[in-house]
Amino acid sequence: MNNFIDSVYHFSGQNTLELAKEYGTPLYVISQDIIENQISKLKESFKDYPMEPRIYFAGKAFTNKGMVKLLDNLGIRLDTVSLGEMVTAKEAGMSFDKLILHGSNKSFEELEYALNENINLIVVDSIEELELLNNLAKKLNKRPKILIRVNPGVEAHTNDLINTSRIDSKFGISVNETKDIINSIEKYPNIELKGFHFHIGSQITEATPYLQALDKVIELYKLALENGLDSVDELDIGGGFGIQYVDTDIEFDPIKSIKQILTIIQDYCESNKLPIPLVSIEPGRYIVGPAGITLYEVGTVKELDGIRTYVSVNGGMTDNPRKALYNADYKAIICNRELNDSNKKTVRVSGRACETDDLIDAIELADPKRGDILAVTNTGAYNYSMFSNYNRVTRPPVILLKDNKKSILVKGQTISDLLKDDLIPEWLE
Amino acid sequence: MNNFIDSVYHFSGQNTLELAKEYGTPLYVISQDIIENQISKLKESFKDYPMEPRIYFAGKAFTNKGMVKLLDNLGIRLDTVSLGEMVTAKEAGMSFDKLILHGSNKSFEELEYALNENINLIVVDSIEELELLNNLAKKLNKRPKILIRVNPGVEAHTNDLINTSRIDSKFGISVNETKDIINSIEKYPNIELKGFHFHIGSQITEATPYLQALDKVIELYKLALENGLDSVDELDIGGGFGIQYVDTDIEFDPIKSIKQILTIIQDYCESNKLPIPLVSIEPGRYIVGPAGITLYEVGTVKELDGIRTYVSVNGGMTDNPRKALYNADYKAIICNRELNDSNKKTVRVSGRACETDDLIDAIELADPKRGDILAVTNTGAYNYSMFSNYNRVTRPPVILLKDNKKSILVKGQTISDLLKDDLIPEWLE
Repeated sequence: MNNFIDSVYHFSGQNTLELAKEYGTPLYVISQDIIENQISKLKESFKDYPMEPRIYFAGKAFTNKGMVKLLDNLGIRLDTVSLGEMVTAKEAGMSFDKLILHGSNKSFEELEYALNENINLIVVDSIEELELLNNLAKKLNKRPKILIRVNPGVEAHTNDLINTSRIDSKFGISVNETKDIINSIEKYPNIELKGFHFHIGSQITEATPYLQALDKVIELYKLALENGLDSVDELDIGGGFGIQYVDTDIEFDPIKSIKQILTIIQDYCESNKLPIPLVSIEPGRYIVGPAGITLYEVGTVKELDGIRTYVSVNGGMTDNPRKALYNADYKAIICNRELNDSNKKTVRVSGRACETDDLIDAIELADPKRGDILAVTNTGAYNYSMFSNYNRVTRPPVILLKDNKKSILVKGQTISDLLKDDLIPEWLE
Repeated sequence: MNNFIDSVYHFSGQNTLELAKEYGTPLYVISQDIIENQISKLKESFKDYPMEPRIYFAGKAFTNKGMVKLLDNLGIRLDTVSLGEMVTAKEAGMSFDKLILHGSNKSFEELEYALNENINLIVVDSIEELELLNNLAKKLNKRPKILIRVNPGVEAHTNDLINTSRIDSKFGISVNETKDIINSIEKYPNIELKGFHFHIGSQITEATPYLQALDKVIELYKLALENGLDSVDELDIGGGFGIQYVDTDIEFDPIKSIKQILTIIQDYCESNKLPIPLVSIEPGRYIVGPAGITLYEVGTVKELDGIRTYVSVNGGMTDNPRKALYNADYKAIICNRELNDSNKKTVRVSGRACETDDLIDAIELADPKRGDILAVTNTGAYNYSMFSNYNRVTRPPVILLKDNKKSILVKGQTISDLLKDDLIPEWLE
């Protein structure tokens, strides 16, 4: 932690105590500079590849109008999974040329909306969906471009909940079924097959599992081209690039690993005399995870003799459910006091919910006291987006930092917002 | 499942297919009749006890204006844990005489609001909070009635996340520290000690753990009265009464178990020549859990040869995160087709989120097909209240059924609601 200036923790160059004072706590803080830096590393990894990278931000990690606008400005596309995300992109002014629609169970309404907006790509997740989409497209007089989500049956070493490419998964179409589709593509005249997608999970740190999946999926690319499907020109290797939540985590290195994947693709195509495909990636956490911190105020500090010290903050599983969901690890910093040998204290950081909502099981902090401001780091992904009003607490505001500027990205909820949809049935009056 | 009429599943006497058609899916459905029935069993359990029961509904399970109004009509009080819950009670017209405020890390704002509204009881969770509250009360010229949350150090057999009375817990004050408070109560002239509270966890099926905790806490009641603290007249044994989610679960039987607890209290007081205390209970799940179902529409049905069948519905971990959080079990029913031997099929029910959001690992259903309506049962507690907008999906409406009437209790969110707080920083325009 060398981001202290005069014993005050600075994030993205800004004084966290002043941010907490101005906007209150809890507060989600997002650094545009870090987002830009992460994106440069991704772009850099494509430097030697002959085709432009197609980088789709995985919207589920963190989507709101301002974020989409920022991504659009930076030349990043959007991976959407719902009507809500597509409408957000539209409201932010992103062209639907830049959108891809995913989902293992898309609704008719979502498919119809995507078709009417001429979305760039729909990722088809089952043969049944392929048939539905073909029929719907015919009815609407459209011919959508699609990728097939292939389930390559690869076991990435990750949390069960976020491993999505085992054979036993709701996601995707098996390699054999995909071959059947390729061999009988004339059954689907209203769709244009553009290529293949796979997604092997989350928090992956190295190229190996991608290469294992690619091994199978690139054969499908070859088969499609051998069958004369000239429209096929894209391979989407998904996301799942890991970040460093705590010191023992290894961050995925795109410049090493994506390069390695691209080289394999290029070599394969050259040896098989195939055209080099467009390659798409779908990072979410990698782009926005390290770009976010959450600021809390410390409340109750409870010392349980001989057991441990509980440090409670004024947020918790409502604004960051990842510990409760995945037993995820986080680091934290007391913003108003630097850690030195004399004030190191191992504590448990707990939330305010009426439930055992611990945020961090055990961490060394600089002698936390009521009124301190505590930053939990790497909260940019899957915190705001997974927020719940459990215990009827309101969603904190999200602010965006850029250079020395700051601005509200998402206003905080008010208690009136919580009440606005509540009705009292007539017979109870 | 004998709630089928003409092969259509009826809940609380109403046709679920008609509800799904009228309000759309996903849909939270709450039965007032079942709520009333659960409450009668709780009241019944106090029949032989000389004092009126004090039943506080644990608001975190399911709070909105209409629910509070219903509880108020039925003579049920409210256990609140946040400003949001207190304001909801106020907006629903419930008198603050009926409210109790809990929380391991209450904010100043919450304590101040509770004091200004003359809340009936504040449950103090730490010695530090006792000091804060005493000072704040003095400043506001108030003298709040309080209970002390005692951590009796009992290990109820329940999920780690929802076990809240181990010694190693953020909740409560130890038995010894509580004795110290009783013995030095003159240090807190601006609070009025009314009694003691404990809460030992969730989904408890029998009286034993309550009796273990009571064993320690009733000694505190005795000590307080021996010390001449005549204001002390209440024992709050918390909630945690289990319900039957699946056939292997045992439902807590209040008529047996609460009666058993009350008898022990009465016997103890008689042998120790102590006045019989008021007894409070704080059930949430027990009252509203069995009163709720969630209706979904079946979408993709994917048969993985030799592995399993995935049945996807148009909701999931966003409207019911309990499977993801606690690996909770649920039952489900196809509403438009009865289960018979010839159409039994063991399937996995999955949600629509871009994540492995299974709702039920394995269940026999009546040959599920796209377009079917599926009801997940016992979703009344901790589903609506834990909803998140993950994947930018909107919160379903909640409807209340009573006899043959139905009415919206909470309107569903719209996509405009999701966008209303989004701002685009000036420098991105």
